[in-house]
Amino acid sequence: MSPKPKIQNLKSLSIVKIGGNIIDNPTELEQFLSDFSKIEGYKILVHGGGKSATKMAESIGLVPQMIDGRRITDAAMLDVVVMIYAGQINKNIVAQLQANNTNAMGFSGADGNLIQSDKRNHPTINYGFVGDVKKVNTQLLETLLSNGIVPVFCAITHDGKGQLLNTNADTIASELAIALSEVFDVTLNYCFEKPGVLYDAEDDSSVIENINQELYSQLKAEKAIHSGMIPKLDNCFNSLSKGVQKIKIGHHRMLQHKTALYTTITL
Amino acid sequence: MSPKPKIQNLKSLSIVKIGGNIIDNPTELEQFLSDFSKIEGYKILVHGGGKSATKMAESIGLVPQMIDGRRITDAAMLDVVVMIYAGQINKNIVAQLQANNTNAMGFSGADGNLIQSDKRNHPTINYGFVGDVKKVNTQLLETLLSNGIVPVFCAITHDGKGQLLNTNADTIASELAIALSEVFDVTLNYCFEKPGVLYDAEDDSSVIENINQELYSQLKAEKAIHSGMIPKLDNCFNSLSKGVQKIKIGHHRMLQHKTALYTTITL
Repeated sequence: MSPKPKIQNLKSLSIVKIGGNIIDNPTELEQFLSDFSKIEGYKILVHGGGKSATKMAESIGLVPQMIDGRRITDAAMLDVVVMIYAGQINKNIVAQLQANNTNAMGFSGADGNLIQSDKRNHPTINYGFVGDVKKVNTQLLETLLSNGIVPVFCAITHDGKGQLLNTNADTIASELAIALSEVFDVTLNYCFEKPGVLYDAEDDSSVIENINQELYSQLKAEKAIHSGMIPKLDNCFNSLSKGVQKIKIGHHRMLQHKTALYTTITL
Repeated sequence: MSPKPKIQNLKSLSIVKIGGNIIDNPTELEQFLSDFSKIEGYKILVHGGGKSATKMAESIGLVPQMIDGRRITDAAMLDVVVMIYAGQINKNIVAQLQANNTNAMGFSGADGNLIQSDKRNHPTINYGFVGDVKKVNTQLLETLLSNGIVPVFCAITHDGKGQLLNTNADTIASELAIALSEVFDVTLNYCFEKPGVLYDAEDDSSVIENINQELYSQLKAEKAIHSGMIPKLDNCFNSLSKGVQKIKIGHHRMLQHKTALYTTITL
């Protein structure tokens, strides 16, 4: 697969995905939101969930359903993740971004039909209320961005038939990046607790500066890639092959601190 | 106080406020959302909370704080109302409206800085995290409406400094109506469990067709108005005096059923 031919002079758009490690740490979150606010040009934030959904589920007596290390989203758990992701986390992030003079607007995929999904239909595992992204409303996102809005997405989508669905936040970030790469020059930033993809998982200074498909195949063959990184990297190469212009993986310091290490993913 | 002079040919905007009686009843809510979807022209939905915030608070062991029959919103209760109002209720309403082919988008006041509040500063009562509306972002709402978006507001606002605030849903509806009456011909619809303002609280057929300020003074003097209606009606006359073109109070059947009774409030 080769990338789409690049259209020159597209406006730049930064899509930033953050996970639980930032969301669960108020000081870290505050620092991140301040840095995120300083990103120039169009930008979108996608946030994962953190530990509060699990804590809430426990406090109301729900027992998390897991199959093969994956959380199964039954109706009661969907209720909890909608409350926590789309309610508590999303609205607090939006309010804090407003305090940073960023005109944030918080969304689930149902809002403005921005991200529609299909309920996952797996031959052997019933994942429950889990959605796989089907369609991004690129036109409305463009309108919002051009009106100065900074969209903030939680990892909830809908099926268009009234059902909310739990959806992987990395996937939401990549699907937004793919859809918007047709009209923007997209940089997709995956922020996590490490400074990048590491040669040695125990050594934070062993950041691999650039991974292309060739190196990735080689590292996988040598089993030199941490198993948790493989779905993330597969996702990255898929996004690049579908038109996303640039992908960076690292600690959120990479957004504003010029000396910060990070990994660039290229085809 | 006299109403502002009317500008001719403003586009019509229906603002509909629903309360807990509809939200707590899934069949009623479904019927309402279907009727709401059929309203022609621009429209906005404002929803209250219902019983689920209290239920959630109880299930996690919070004791609701009340002073003079008013709920005090401490930090833990704010967390709960944000989850339930902005998360669970708002997103489920949005998803159901999408299923009715209405391009709903769910908002707190923090989103797009659409409704900014001041934390209530009462000389004797500490209401906690309660906000009184200060400013509506009329321009952004106009942009959203003109792009086919149907805003759905929960009763949460923010102070612009990062703090979310619990806010009365009737007040949100009236403040939106006042702000938008400058650019739209606004009809503000308060839906509740009764078919209108009643002469006799026990007799649902005793709907007062029209209440103006003169009749209102007379009814209050005769103590013929149910005490719970007084703040609602005061709110209505305030909105009319500030430019809102039309106010209707009744059961949500009034939105689509031509034979339904309701009360019109006029100056």
